[in-house]
Amino acid sequence: MEFVKMHGAGNDYVYVDCFDQTVPSDLPELARRISHRRFGVGADGLILVRPSEQADAWMHMFNADGSESEMCGNGIRCVAKLVQDRGYANASPLIIESGGRAYTIQTQCDDDGKVCQVTVDMGKPILQPERIPTLIPGDPHVVDVQVEVDGRRFPVTCVSMGNPHCVVFVDHADDEWVLKIGPQLENDPRFPKRVNVEFVEVLSPTEVRQRTWERGSGETWACGTGASAVCVAGVLTGRTERTILNHLLGGDLTLRWDEDSDHVFMTGGATEVFRGTW
Amino acid sequence: MEFVKMHGAGNDYVYVDCFDQTVPSDLPELARRISHRRFGVGADGLILVRPSEQADAWMHMFNADGSESEMCGNGIRCVAKLVQDRGYANASPLIIESGGRAYTIQTQCDDDGKVCQVTVDMGKPILQPERIPTLIPGDPHVVDVQVEVDGRRFPVTCVSMGNPHCVVFVDHADDEWVLKIGPQLENDPRFPKRVNVEFVEVLSPTEVRQRTWERGSGETWACGTGASAVCVAGVLTGRTERTILNHLLGGDLTLRWDEDSDHVFMTGGATEVFRGTW
Repeated sequence: MEFVKMHGAGNDYVYVDCFDQTVPSDLPELARRISHRRFGVGADGLILVRPSEQADAWMHMFNADGSESEMCGNGIRCVAKLVQDRGYANASPLIIESGGRAYTIQTQCDDDGKVCQVTVDMGKPILQPERIPTLIPGDPHVVDVQVEVDGRRFPVTCVSMGNPHCVVFVDHADDEWVLKIGPQLENDPRFPKRVNVEFVEVLSPTEVRQRTWERGSGETWACGTGASAVCVAGVLTGRTERTILNHLLGGDLTLRWDEDSDHVFMTGGATEVFRGTW
Repeated sequence: MEFVKMHGAGNDYVYVDCFDQTVPSDLPELARRISHRRFGVGADGLILVRPSEQADAWMHMFNADGSESEMCGNGIRCVAKLVQDRGYANASPLIIESGGRAYTIQTQCDDDGKVCQVTVDMGKPILQPERIPTLIPGDPHVVDVQVEVDGRRFPVTCVSMGNPHCVVFVDHADDEWVLKIGPQLENDPRFPKRVNVEFVEVLSPTEVRQRTWERGSGETWACGTGASAVCVAGVLTGRTERTILNHLLGGDLTLRWDEDSDHVFMTGGATEVFRGTW
């Protein structure tokens, strides 16, 4: 089986082009084996790029533990790159299906005509507390509401981008915040479906630095929905403008919360690392 | 550049066949980039398999941080597999040069004629305290000598296999031992060049379970010289026989301390994971 390893902001997957080959039937087992960083290719998971009846391609995604996943903002940029670079579609915008939804995507190419930057329409943020969901009272939204965790009091802003996020603006996004407060917030009873937590330093009204504590994964290199939630939270709290450059551990993302459409647009790289045969 | 990813007992390297291709000149930089587990192929390091004037091949080895390395018992098994499977040599024994020394190697093949198990002559253990080096007094060797670390008293046995090892036999090789006592022993002033530490459960006179704290690396999946030192320490302390099966985190190794030659022989697997183009 041929594959290509790609990453978006350090979030890496094994991509298998299913336009021109078939894959084994036991996909969870394949995902577990191929994702292992010593005994396999090594990745955050496996993404099959498959033909779709409704869209230009279907992103069929598995985590490293074999569980199926609905969407990954960093992964879908790489899917767009594969689909366009290999000539399976050259519409603008591209439509990629993932987890039963269709995502609208714009691409930019480098001098060689290969896709290098991809903008994904991440949709509208959800701000009603009961839909995020969070039990923290909002009036009407949870914007800079004081909470207490482990004896510390600090303001949080809660946003859903299809999955729940709790954004914490801090002076220094250090290990004390990320590794100690992160898991406590993730599992706090005020978040009935647990929560992803972003710790954010504001460098200027158009630039932030983010560290991410992901629900079920711990600290991660990049999180596209989290970066989008940070963009929304920055505007809601008056800390940042509608377009920001966000420095994550694995690389940079540009986010724009469009005033007219209410949609968040995420732009970032999609990088091929190597190709191989499994 | 073509490469193959292989592992021996979970100790994984990117192998580049330099019999049939040239490689970039900045090898430390290549090693750092290609070893990165997200932005590169991902490995413990880079091993170039090169022609040698004195031996069947030269194992030219770099760690993931770009530093050059002299020898890796798990790596040399995979080098032997590559050299024999690709028909560059079929002598028995094979001679592989690494770090200026020549290693003698025996191979076993599976039904397809591919190398699957490899035995490496790891040489003679060094037991004189000043040559290990350790300041712990031995009479004449450091065999089950009581030391105190972090308030705990326990016996240690010290062996050099070209690099220094401190073997600690324990009832349960748990995190308290490996992650707490391991780094303290590594940096204990009684080991002037620091030390690798093995925590070993004796399951029977012919079977042990080992966890490894490697000097400069922390806990690792497997350590060929460490497994060899454990074999020697087991005999010296009367706990095990001269041939043992050693279960490491990344897989099994069989060790034999030959009475006649005084050499230690290590046998283990060499597994190709995938091939790729960088």
